[in-house]
Amino acid sequence: MVIRPYGYGIWENIQRWLDSAFKNKGVENAYFPQLIPYSFLQKEADHVEGFAPELALVTRGGGKELEEPLVVRPTSETIVNHMFSQWIQSHRDLPLMVNQWANVHRWEMRTRPFVRTLEFLWQEGHTAHATPEEARETAREFVALYERFAVEAAALPVVAGRKSRIESFAGANVTYTIEAMMGDRRALQAGTSHDLGDNFARAFNTRFATKEGGSVSGGSNDSDASSSSSNTNLAFVHQTSWGVSTRMVGGVVMAHGDDTGLRLPPALAPTQLIIVPILGKKGTDPLPIYEAAQKLCDALCDAGVRAKVDSTEGKSPGWKFSHWEMKGVPLRLEVGPRDVAAGCCVLARRDLPRSDERSKVAGVPTEPSGALVGRVKETLGEIQASLLEQATAFRDANIRDVASYAELKQAIDEGFWARGWWAGSDADEERVKEETGGATLRCFPFEQPEEAGVNGGGGGKCLMSGGEAVEVAIFAKSY
Amino acid sequence: MVIRPYGYGIWENIQRWLDSAFKNKGVENAYFPQLIPYSFLQKEADHVEGFAPELALVTRGGGKELEEPLVVRPTSETIVNHMFSQWIQSHRDLPLMVNQWANVHRWEMRTRPFVRTLEFLWQEGHTAHATPEEARETAREFVALYERFAVEAAALPVVAGRKSRIESFAGANVTYTIEAMMGDRRALQAGTSHDLGDNFARAFNTRFATKEGGSVSGGSNDSDASSSSSNTNLAFVHQTSWGVSTRMVGGVVMAHGDDTGLRLPPALAPTQLIIVPILGKKGTDPLPIYEAAQKLCDALCDAGVRAKVDSTEGKSPGWKFSHWEMKGVPLRLEVGPRDVAAGCCVLARRDLPRSDERSKVAGVPTEPSGALVGRVKETLGEIQASLLEQATAFRDANIRDVASYAELKQAIDEGFWARGWWAGSDADEERVKEETGGATLRCFPFEQPEEAGVNGGGGGKCLMSGGEAVEVAIFAKSY
Repeated sequence: MVIRPYGYGIWENIQRWLDSAFKNKGVENAYFPQLIPYSFLQKEADHVEGFAPELALVTRGGGKELEEPLVVRPTSETIVNHMFSQWIQSHRDLPLMVNQWANVHRWEMRTRPFVRTLEFLWQEGHTAHATPEEARETAREFVALYERFAVEAAALPVVAGRKSRIESFAGANVTYTIEAMMGDRRALQAGTSHDLGDNFARAFNTRFATKEGGSVSGGSNDSDASSSSSNTNLAFVHQTSWGVSTRMVGGVVMAHGDDTGLRLPPALAPTQLIIVPILGKKGTDPLPIYEAAQKLCDALCDAGVRAKVDSTEGKSPGWKFSHWEMKGVPLRLEVGPRDVAAGCCVLARRDLPRSDERSKVAGVPTEPSGALVGRVKETLGEIQASLLEQATAFRDANIRDVASYAELKQAIDEGFWARGWWAGSDADEERVKEETGGATLRCFPFEQPEEAGVNGGGGGKCLMSGGEAVEVAIFAKSY
Repeated sequence: MVIRPYGYGIWENIQRWLDSAFKNKGVENAYFPQLIPYSFLQKEADHVEGFAPELALVTRGGGKELEEPLVVRPTSETIVNHMFSQWIQSHRDLPLMVNQWANVHRWEMRTRPFVRTLEFLWQEGHTAHATPEEARETAREFVALYERFAVEAAALPVVAGRKSRIESFAGANVTYTIEAMMGDRRALQAGTSHDLGDNFARAFNTRFATKEGGSVSGGSNDSDASSSSSNTNLAFVHQTSWGVSTRMVGGVVMAHGDDTGLRLPPALAPTQLIIVPILGKKGTDPLPIYEAAQKLCDALCDAGVRAKVDSTEGKSPGWKFSHWEMKGVPLRLEVGPRDVAAGCCVLARRDLPRSDERSKVAGVPTEPSGALVGRVKETLGEIQASLLEQATAFRDANIRDVASYAELKQAIDEGFWARGWWAGSDADEERVKEETGGATLRCFPFEQPEEAGVNGGGGGKCLMSGGEAVEVAIFAKSY
């Protein structure tokens, strides 16, 4: 996959939002080697089993056959633990929270731009904690952060929840997810956060001297570390990892797009407002129009709006309107001779249907520019809210509550997400997948019906087994 | 190489400066695949010859032997041209200017942290132009930008110039470089910009319909393109590429560091100012000191200073002073009970010797905070200038003008950079390298003696051949 500048611009806005949110939580960026000795992956049995089929392997370097093949990282838990086991000695080193912005490879057979690609870009956070509770809490915190990002920036009303055992990350105790509904009603896993427990810590001997112990000797830098596991003052760390990738760009495109093209939420749009100069009849001087357009653009950019003038020659205003609509630019500002004379302009919103009169806001004053800037910012806020509102209504209309397996199959067959009480086995889940043409358990949503028994109390009847279920699950076909 | 957060923080500041400068020049970020078919490299003969010895090869993917090995990119000219040949059809598509932030691999035998590593992070810009002149001009522009970055942000008084033929990039017509002098007087190539001419364009058939031609048919999307080279309306693009890598972090460390540790220029320091609270005698309440320290920190951060309080317990102020000196934090602010009472504080500069009285600025008022903020910003500016000044004096004292090969050898032997008139052959250059224990022609500096004949006119006598030379070259040992 090649990411061209317009798509990369969306990714840069995703990066900016997340990077700043991570730093506010005390996470620091770092960088770990991409090529990982194969033996590192083998140290965690589930992990290597999960990733082995989709690895790219470097077997030659500098003109020589390598003694041990190197894995092109599909994710970095193993190399991170290799380093963490050297960096962490004492409880004073905890919590340790790092993130890296990196490329990863997973050898996929069927690819789809942005959504499933052999190589993709992502961030992967890795944290280590003194207690299992703190790790669990942190994994929850980061999926909550992803949910906030999805809702606030991407205008995606995702369903956040817990993955089933068989859908969890290879090596995790629990995987949390945000699931987004695309325009064709398929689900897209748009971000995950894993509670890794001490699985990798045990595999890599990542231990720390506890507060109670006090002494840091015998830490993992100690050559005698593996034999000193009887030392009760040393404990394994508990870890998390969490990631969002360029797949999010695909999610934004496929959730909000319509028949005319993209519709980008202003928070992520590389260009938030395009100014189209509308020249008068042939022979009239275009210069005053271009100048007025540029002046408006400068005022908007100074105010922090990502605005641009389309002064391409040889294209009609209508052609330009269509072009930028297809690109999903949230707002268009039209400036013609009459507008310049009247000191006003026309704004057109991309989020509303083209035929909708509401999509055009005529008579927005351009003088003084403060009035225009205020109006533009307000309208961008309205568009951001409107896309979220539309996506939320669409999502809610397309999740169907089901009480039996027959109802589930019918709902899936009609393209819905099916939500129902679930206490089925791994085999039951596989059966659903087989018999529905691929629907999987997307998650046990955090938001459960009032009568749910997840925290003790009520619950319902499992739609598959008829047994007692304490929570509902959502099934859907997905990308 | 693992980049820990502190080092990565320096890289993030380098990225911020460069990324914004690129965007101001109209460059957009994009992303190209990392794994490149081996046959792509073979299309440009010099290129594959230069890079073949240091490639990492992926030969297995998804559990299968690949039909053609994939190269883990050592640089991206080939894959970029593969895409450019599809994107560029008309003169209207030019100039095309993209950049990517990425990791690259070069299989090095002898590695050194940050300076020479098997994997490193960098940015690589790639541009395509309609004329050779524009490409040449652009390559010069970007080396000038690198020079400005080095001087203004990294406080490195680099020597910018042109590489000799044998030191040029494999596939380039001309390579420009910035060469920095490290504390041990070795040279470090800290950034390069290449005029690629139409070498890659010819290899990948990257052509455009010229203004004169007008028609875009027969462009490179045309299956008949290779046979239509007789079409005079199609022309090869002329290209540049340019890059700066995490090696720059090593350059900053090795150029400015002293026996106490790092000395970071404020423009790149992850932490510009560290506040060390100095608690009173045992039994006195530490809270007012911590509160005062935090308040000062908040005021500084609000004003855009990267400030931090070191409130670690169990470490003495003296220990903290040494720790942050080693880390190279430019400014230290000490806050003790007497300072709080008097509403003032002590600032200590890292750039001056510890014994130097000037390094401590006592009595800086902390109330109102505006006075402190002003003083801190001013002092950070002074430190930035002082590091550049020190490095410039050091550089100038360590470049020696030489008039003969004997003088050159002696200068190199004594650790100097040797500068002299040069019109030698490739073989002469190799001879210098062999007979001096590794000194190479670092560059023909842009800044030439007044009597130089590079633009016609004077010149001098080549120190090696005795023949006429139109410019001086610099020889030095390097990393």
